[in-house]
Amino acid sequence: MEDKMKEILELFEAKRYKAIREALYGVDVPHMVDMIGELKDQDRVLFFRLIPKDSAAAVFTELSGETQRIIVSAISDPEIHAIMNELYFDDKIDVLEELPANMVSKILKNTTKAERQLINQFLNYPEDSAGSIMTIEYVSLSRDMSVAEALEHIKEIGLTRETIYTCYVISPTKVLEGIVSLRDLVTQEPDVLVEDIMEEDIVFVSTWDDQEEVAHIFRDYGFMAMPVVDGEHRLTGIVTIDDIIDVIEEESTEDFQKMAAMTPSDEPYLETSIWTLAKNRITWLIILMLTAMITGFIITGFNDVLQASVILVSFIPMLMDTGGNAGNQASTMIIRGIALGEVDYKDIAKVLAKEFGVGIIVAFIMAFVNFFRILFMTPASLAVNVTVTFTLFITVVFAKLVGCALPLFAHRVKLDPAIMASPMITTIVDALALTLYFVTAKILLGL
Amino acid sequence: MEDKMKEILELFEAKRYKAIREALYGVDVPHMVDMIGELKDQDRVLFFRLIPKDSAAAVFTELSGETQRIIVSAISDPEIHAIMNELYFDDKIDVLEELPANMVSKILKNTTKAERQLINQFLNYPEDSAGSIMTIEYVSLSRDMSVAEALEHIKEIGLTRETIYTCYVISPTKVLEGIVSLRDLVTQEPDVLVEDIMEEDIVFVSTWDDQEEVAHIFRDYGFMAMPVVDGEHRLTGIVTIDDIIDVIEEESTEDFQKMAAMTPSDEPYLETSIWTLAKNRITWLIILMLTAMITGFIITGFNDVLQASVILVSFIPMLMDTGGNAGNQASTMIIRGIALGEVDYKDIAKVLAKEFGVGIIVAFIMAFVNFFRILFMTPASLAVNVTVTFTLFITVVFAKLVGCALPLFAHRVKLDPAIMASPMITTIVDALALTLYFVTAKILLGL
Repeated sequence: MEDKMKEILELFEAKRYKAIREALYGVDVPHMVDMIGELKDQDRVLFFRLIPKDSAAAVFTELSGETQRIIVSAISDPEIHAIMNELYFDDKIDVLEELPANMVSKILKNTTKAERQLINQFLNYPEDSAGSIMTIEYVSLSRDMSVAEALEHIKEIGLTRETIYTCYVISPTKVLEGIVSLRDLVTQEPDVLVEDIMEEDIVFVSTWDDQEEVAHIFRDYGFMAMPVVDGEHRLTGIVTIDDIIDVIEEESTEDFQKMAAMTPSDEPYLETSIWTLAKNRITWLIILMLTAMITGFIITGFNDVLQASVILVSFIPMLMDTGGNAGNQASTMIIRGIALGEVDYKDIAKVLAKEFGVGIIVAFIMAFVNFFRILFMTPASLAVNVTVTFTLFITVVFAKLVGCALPLFAHRVKLDPAIMASPMITTIVDALALTLYFVTAKILLGL
Repeated sequence: MEDKMKEILELFEAKRYKAIREALYGVDVPHMVDMIGELKDQDRVLFFRLIPKDSAAAVFTELSGETQRIIVSAISDPEIHAIMNELYFDDKIDVLEELPANMVSKILKNTTKAERQLINQFLNYPEDSAGSIMTIEYVSLSRDMSVAEALEHIKEIGLTRETIYTCYVISPTKVLEGIVSLRDLVTQEPDVLVEDIMEEDIVFVSTWDDQEEVAHIFRDYGFMAMPVVDGEHRLTGIVTIDDIIDVIEEESTEDFQKMAAMTPSDEPYLETSIWTLAKNRITWLIILMLTAMITGFIITGFNDVLQASVILVSFIPMLMDTGGNAGNQASTMIIRGIALGEVDYKDIAKVLAKEFGVGIIVAFIMAFVNFFRILFMTPASLAVNVTVTFTLFITVVFAKLVGCALPLFAHRVKLDPAIMASPMITTIVDALALTLYFVTAKILLGL
């Protein structure tokens, strides 16, 4: 397939468009998406138009928001209409959410009034809510159907539904009454009633629930799909497991980015412009640069100590890096634990006790190694050595406690724990470490 | 449910075991798993025995490896046998992989010879391979069956299979010939032949493929299940999407831990002992503490510069933190991009160009802010200010380039990119920043 992709891209360079059209039959959607990703922005529309009609919609939903915008602004109304008609409802909503308002109205112009209302309702669900990732393509049955009737109904409508493996039993007013799996339907005798085999004790989410919560439930229960209900327990849609995979990867990516002091973005790296990347990074870099002023003030405040013993300076980077690393380890464990639903604010006493224990153990070993390292490898006096080793010990223990506590506090006050990661903790631990270092030096060196 | 869980745990404290047994009916598996997690180690076996028989196996597979070991070593052979009999084959393998050898043989003793051979084969697949996460519970059909015969066959065997939604068409020698979904079977007329509706152009993986690769394919294609074949294209098992969710979360957790300089572990935080946590963290802390010696040597080497201008010291923490943060942002983007399959070594020229651009933009803004900050808020001379600002600019650009290049090089030589994260890069960038800082100071301050 790699060879074929290369060949097609070469045909594109050579502007042999008819040959591409033929070569693209038999190429699957992910590979076509990859090829578009390889092209320059201005070539993407042209290439997209060469894709076989019956794959165009599937390829379109998989493109990045940036590329979708380029394509929608370039192609004609009938072309847009054809693509949108092919899309599943939840993919349609995803696409519309990415587009700017003028393009959305360009698209909505081409839909029926009923669908326009439904789309507007979906676009109003908060980003990252169950409502924003659910689909309306599901099979609904009523409790008084027989298995044979149910299977007949599925046969009639099944082909247009994104998932038919779980069927939802609803009342005439759309209240969710139970679920029945296709597996159960095909393994039962035809004359059994749906209400006799449906599961009534079901797990569901509400339209406004956070998508991360929904992902936890999927993982804990091993579901393939889950119903979404409104305040009156009416079925409004279903969430399917393939969308949950996207949620899990997005949430992890966001956490990685926040923990590295960036504004999160779910656009693929290679398709993000230099300006956007710079914008996402500069805010936190400036904030952290300015908060690092504090360490500068502390050092200036202890100028006399430094003047008296310049060798103290040579251990500052090691103390700061070690404090940062120790805190980073603890905060990463806790932030990840919170994200996976394994750790919660109510566990704070247990967590602090654990980190205190871990801190004492690792600090002891490190202090030991450090003491002999300084003794044998540097000209530092015993007093300086003890100053460094003592500061190292306290810094490591303190870093572990701050590292685990801050994310839990953030979680408690409904802030995102991930922003309390490494860079934030490093700044706090640095300030403590430096102050302790100089005060200890003052006492032990008799300054 | 929260209330009920609290009530049950109180009953447990009060040793009212009979009442617990009754109360546990109607509690679902994830909540029982949660309750066991809340208990002390020594109480877990007792509580586990109170769980209704038909949920015991499902609860057991969801427990942490640590808890499974405690339970297996405490309960009797017939009890183990009963649990193992209830498990799906892939869950059974997962459990066996977590247990020490003596417990594995205790369990294997209770199985048939044929199953023992199959289990041994599965235990030999490398950890993190497709073979290690696949299951043997799938529906296989032959191409000359009719739809009616196929549905009849599914009815007979369906209930014991983990997934029947995709059926696999195999030859008499087990070579994979095609797939057909249950959706297609129920929506077709009964006398159509399987070979006429089966999809022959299928995506599959091999037993030895890495589970992360498999997860990428699931995400790209939106599959619910995927066949696994051996070297002769014979079907050996299938991987289902619920196991892929576990893979994705595990791989992310590992990356988070490696990036924070820890030995990865997939045990839940609260159930990991202090000793294990300390052991996972100490190695990298010591390595990084010792490599930080380099910065100490650099500072000692420029002792004369420091003696002449002690104010230079007060900017060292800010320069180091900023370099670390800037590098961390770049490395996080690239490590995550590699993990998601979006970025590869072949993109290195593009990536370097991008990071160079981003570096220049953010470095310019930061240098600007920093210059005026020093000018108005510190007593530093213009020469010192220019030294700091110049070093800051170069450090940020350099950090971006090192931050993106190291993970790509690691990936190229088949090392894990995640170990090239923040702490490693910080050490390299620190050394460059300090050297540049002192050399610039020497020149500009005329020392």
